[in-house]
Amino acid sequence: MTANDAMHLVETRMFEVVHSDVKILQEASHHILAAGGKRVRPRMLLLAYEACGGTHLERAVPLAAAGELVHTASVVHADINDHGVVRRGRPSVNAKWGRTFALLTGDFLFTKVYELMAPYKDLNVDLADATVALVEGETLQAAAVKDNHFTREVYYQIIARKTAALFRASAVLGGKLASADPQHIEALGEYGFNVGLAFQIIDDVLDLTADETQLGKTSGIDLAQGRGYVAAYKTNGDASNGVAVAEAVLTEQVPADPITSIKQKLLQGDAIHEARLNARRLADLAISTLSVLPDSAARRGLIDLANMVVDRDH
Amino acid sequence: MTANDAMHLVETRMFEVVHSDVKILQEASHHILAAGGKRVRPRMLLLAYEACGGTHLERAVPLAAAGELVHTASVVHADINDHGVVRRGRPSVNAKWGRTFALLTGDFLFTKVYELMAPYKDLNVDLADATVALVEGETLQAAAVKDNHFTREVYYQIIARKTAALFRASAVLGGKLASADPQHIEALGEYGFNVGLAFQIIDDVLDLTADETQLGKTSGIDLAQGRGYVAAYKTNGDASNGVAVAEAVLTEQVPADPITSIKQKLLQGDAIHEARLNARRLADLAISTLSVLPDSAARRGLIDLANMVVDRDH
Repeated sequence: MTANDAMHLVETRMFEVVHSDVKILQEASHHILAAGGKRVRPRMLLLAYEACGGTHLERAVPLAAAGELVHTASVVHADINDHGVVRRGRPSVNAKWGRTFALLTGDFLFTKVYELMAPYKDLNVDLADATVALVEGETLQAAAVKDNHFTREVYYQIIARKTAALFRASAVLGGKLASADPQHIEALGEYGFNVGLAFQIIDDVLDLTADETQLGKTSGIDLAQGRGYVAAYKTNGDASNGVAVAEAVLTEQVPADPITSIKQKLLQGDAIHEARLNARRLADLAISTLSVLPDSAARRGLIDLANMVVDRDH
Repeated sequence: MTANDAMHLVETRMFEVVHSDVKILQEASHHILAAGGKRVRPRMLLLAYEACGGTHLERAVPLAAAGELVHTASVVHADINDHGVVRRGRPSVNAKWGRTFALLTGDFLFTKVYELMAPYKDLNVDLADATVALVEGETLQAAAVKDNHFTREVYYQIIARKTAALFRASAVLGGKLASADPQHIEALGEYGFNVGLAFQIIDDVLDLTADETQLGKTSGIDLAQGRGYVAAYKTNGDASNGVAVAEAVLTEQVPADPITSIKQKLLQGDAIHEARLNARRLADLAISTLSVLPDSAARRGLIDLANMVVDRDH
């Protein structure tokens, strides 16, 4: 079985898992799943499994499906809190079914992960820890928005938990399922974590630079909520133009109206460029970590994945 | 160790489980946990364990804590969807921290259950299934409110999933942990399920008859949302006064204003009385199921629990 075959099985499995005679839950889950998405996490898990010598890809399928469902659940709930109306080029569950059913659909996806993973025991602990971290990261983010307190340090704490923890778990689970050496599992964990950080930084850059059609989701949400992610990311103490812009963003609560002008300022400054450079550095760091693994098509696939995460335009 | 000692350990364990350096999650979780609650589910689990000969109550503590945390998570999210502002005699998480943090606190509690139970494997499947059923039941309820379609059958489908499934799982888990005979586990499952149905019927009766101080939560929510639970429960085809009232409730979407008058009508009819009778029958049925178990203090405790569920006034 090729990794592509396995990815098809992951899709099938996710649709099976969300089966329910409560039609609205099944329909809303199918709606968000059918819209696609980049499927970076399951792909990483399958490649990590193969890179560690795993030869039964079908065994990795339920784990890969579970990881992507955790992400999907968090997206459905994030669109409630962020008032996101477009997701993956379609109306969000929130926009289509309303807040109550979006909340319950997210709960359904979270609890279906729990059900799917219940028989797994040890492997399950990694995914459960990452799921808790994700919710903590979303909460840190909401608290930072509320308190209008975004620093570079806070930004890193947020993205480490809300994004990088699940990437780390995906790579680690692939390695563990293949019964890899602890040293290799550790390396995969670092790889996944750094790719996750890079992924989120680029996501936040694209929120500013890409239009909604390209992005497939409501853009400018971060700015609209006064987050100024990219700007925060840039406040590293030097005296460049980017910092001045960042401070402007960080010291005022950003109202909904002047988004365009702030966007213009950020786009004129160095912030975007710096953020892209940092994402590139993290991806390179991730790639170098893989050197402990023997060369293989799967290891090359993990390298390509890290590059894709940084070089993508949507 | 006595069952009361074990219940103290359950409390302690729940507080430990929700530890987080994300202070808002820990505080909101402590807020709802510290308010107490009846703790019927963990008590049932511990008693079922002892009634099947289990002698290491401390082993049942994490399972009992997990079941109560599932219930707690669902309560936090239900208060968002129902606009409940009082819960267990305190402001709801929703009222105190706002919708965004209430949503995340519920997610945190659901995912903490997942994390707590991750090492358990087989036993975990029962609790995971019940957790999914709970979310499905809440969704059936929200859909019935939206479509204004409440029949007695729909009412039973709702309460079977949103309440009775977790009661069943609690009793079953106690039995399984004690390595009970399959026949005894089956009996405990039926017991738990029927006590759960009775518990929810009485909850819905108290929503109509008790005042908020007594109830410790926002009352009249069911009616305010046009649910007319007790009324629905009464539409069993006979021609009594209760049915006429029930049909009045069921055929019109109930606006917020005439709640008091509908409440009056229901209180004057037979609906409340009938609902109480049916809860009593279910409790008696549950108690009779326990006859396959040998007599013990714990079995008598389960009988008392079933009676308490029906006879309580809050």
